Amino acid sequence: MREAKGYTAAEMQRKASGGSISERISKWELDTPALCVDLDKLEQNIETMRRRLAEAGIASRPHSKTHKCPAIAKLQLAGGSIGVCTAKVSEAEALFAGGVQPILMTTANVTAGKIRRAMALRKANPDFIQAVDNPRNAHDLSDAAREAGVVADVVVDVAAGTRTGVPPDGRALTLAQLVDSLPGLKFRGMIAYDGSVQHVKPFKARLEKALENAAPHAGAFEAMKRSGLNAEIFSGGGTGTYNIMPRVPGLTDVQVGSYIFMDNQYIEIGSETNEAVFDDFAPSLTVITTIVNAYWQGRLTTDGGAKAFTIDTPTPAVIGEPGFRYTADSDEFGKIEYETAGKAYEAGDKLEVIPPHCDPVVNLYDQIYGTRGGLVEVVWPVSARGCSQ
Amino acid sequence: MREAKGYTAAEMQRKASGGSISERISKWELDTPALCVDLDKLEQNIETMRRRLAEAGIASRPHSKTHKCPAIAKLQLAGGSIGVCTAKVSEAEALFAGGVQPILMTTANVTAGKIRRAMALRKANPDFIQAVDNPRNAHDLSDAAREAGVVADVVVDVAAGTRTGVPPDGRALTLAQLVDSLPGLKFRGMIAYDGSVQHVKPFKARLEKALENAAPHAGAFEAMKRSGLNAEIFSGGGTGTYNIMPRVPGLTDVQVGSYIFMDNQYIEIGSETNEAVFDDFAPSLTVITTIVNAYWQGRLTTDGGAKAFTIDTPTPAVIGEPGFRYTADSDEFGKIEYETAGKAYEAGDKLEVIPPHCDPVVNLYDQIYGTRGGLVEVVWPVSARGCSQ
Repeated sequence: MREAKGYTAAEMQRKASGGSISERISKWELDTPALCVDLDKLEQNIETMRRRLAEAGIASRPHSKTHKCPAIAKLQLAGGSIGVCTAKVSEAEALFAGGVQPILMTTANVTAGKIRRAMALRKANPDFIQAVDNPRNAHDLSDAAREAGVVADVVVDVAAGTRTGVPPDGRALTLAQLVDSLPGLKFRGMIAYDGSVQHVKPFKARLEKALENAAPHAGAFEAMKRSGLNAEIFSGGGTGTYNIMPRVPGLTDVQVGSYIFMDNQYIEIGSETNEAVFDDFAPSLTVITTIVNAYWQGRLTTDGGAKAFTIDTPTPAVIGEPGFRYTADSDEFGKIEYETAGKAYEAGDKLEVIPPHCDPVVNLYDQIYGTRGGLVEVVWPVSARGCSQ
Repeated sequence: MREAKGYTAAEMQRKASGGSISERISKWELDTPALCVDLDKLEQNIETMRRRLAEAGIASRPHSKTHKCPAIAKLQLAGGSIGVCTAKVSEAEALFAGGVQPILMTTANVTAGKIRRAMALRKANPDFIQAVDNPRNAHDLSDAAREAGVVADVVVDVAAGTRTGVPPDGRALTLAQLVDSLPGLKFRGMIAYDGSVQHVKPFKARLEKALENAAPHAGAFEAMKRSGLNAEIFSGGGTGTYNIMPRVPGLTDVQVGSYIFMDNQYIEIGSETNEAVFDDFAPSLTVITTIVNAYWQGRLTTDGGAKAFTIDTPTPAVIGEPGFRYTADSDEFGKIEYETAGKAYEAGDKLEVIPPHCDPVVNLYDQIYGTRGGLVEVVWPVSARGCSQ
């Protein structure tokens, strides 16, 4: 056989954690599809975000729904973030179990089971903050908090569009005042995440739309402060608007997620200075995939299909082969069509691919291989993978 | 609070396995998104497939990439299937670890690491059969088999289209003869899966196209038999062609997968007798989701987005609400738009939803709740979830 090596995940874990560089193996030897992150780029992205936000005078509270890894959340906290966000209570539980403490859960828990879980988490973790967006739910949270013997920290989710949140009119202030008045709850401020503007291009259009949409949120936050509430948190924005949100009056922190990994969806939105490529952050996340069939002219089949990449668009991009059109709409196989290729490929050859959309791709894998200079340095469990509850 | 109950996954597992009906809880009390299968319908689908194929005189070797559950594979084997298929070696390992023995892996292993894993599995499991589609790989397999001290059972994957497989011309026979001649391998037959025809509609067009595409496969199989090879397996077809493939000369078994669960993609292809609905099998797989926001007229937001349903089409279908248009293209949230609804919904209400495409949806969940009459009777771990390697 051409290759002598080939390791199982357990063997990889052992070699990576061994610590000796001579023990490490190449990302090209991983059984595929393998989810990898370039640690130099990851660290550079965390540092870039830290520096840019420090200059702008706001903080970051990164959304860990992107990576679902306690290890990466800890790197973000060590890199200056004031906390992390989670989308779901099971995700918050997994992060806390992995040693992450300052967590803001951005979705309201509206059923008895999840409210009970959230209060148990709050009891164990004094730095857990949860969101609410309707009055009845605020009463339920307060009742459950008292039953659990805690005073639960709560932010009001204010709507950006029509997805979640209380509309940013008088109802937002009324809900904030209700939360403040309930015996089991402590009002901490508000969140407002505008997903609709993150991928608007070019930058100028994104800037204008983001500020226009954020105006009612700034107004709601100002009203809460004016009314004497303890409005210490005003969190919003994402990777696409991280350098726009500092202009929103009162905003304290951005819920950036994808900046640590990047993906094809974010690469193509362009930056403030580069309309073609959003290059403020480096694409650190890739999937290594293997060619399994090369019989047909201008076509290759890989072992990375929808269960490795999702069917999101823009489609996966093969590094070093700009002429490759990669389609992942088959569950188990990727299809590549091309006119020109850098070399003649055959079954067994490996390709490194940038995924379409980082969040749902990470959610397909149990581990991320952290590489430096192409060698696997660490294997991180994706502890909150599948935690959509 | 309106609901008194609310169980964690661990509590559910305890209650379901307790065995007492009075202990069981309703699927409506599960923390959501929750993946459920109706056991009556599942059993009915297995029985329908058994009966229809027995009448047709062929067998089934269901593809367990659909369910990734050893428990369900065992039900299929108990229901008359002669084995199961897996797409990947890690999937085969997980099934075997769960007590499933007759496994045919339909994708070739083309790297040293995976070949080593496949041979280790063959050593432990004499009923493991693997596929090969190119000569160099056949030599590699034979070398690895000898190194592992086994004679590995091999089928030749013959191409249907241009995805995997050796082209169904003279090269297929040559490869079969090579496999037969190599000291580490035992030739068992061939597989040929034609994914392109599974969703062709109406039935008549599907029938014609499937038989046209299968003709070269039947020819390749006939040539193998004529040449004196031990051609005992000729496996192909899927749920969309389960009642067409018996007409293909020599075919021994169908690799049906989705029939146990069904999904919106298969429901709409129509059957031999019902052009509008493929109703040979009952939709047994659903996701329970919770409404988290109901502020806006004609809109609802649920907790089931792309991480619960994928973004496959046709979009998720809410049972009992034909007027609901469900979009799952947001990672964490489902969006419902409607003009008419059966009732006035509010946050906390739950909906039962048929997913777009069963295979990649199951791959998002760690467990399937098996229900009967709406009560959870069993919790099955999705043991091979994420096993895309």
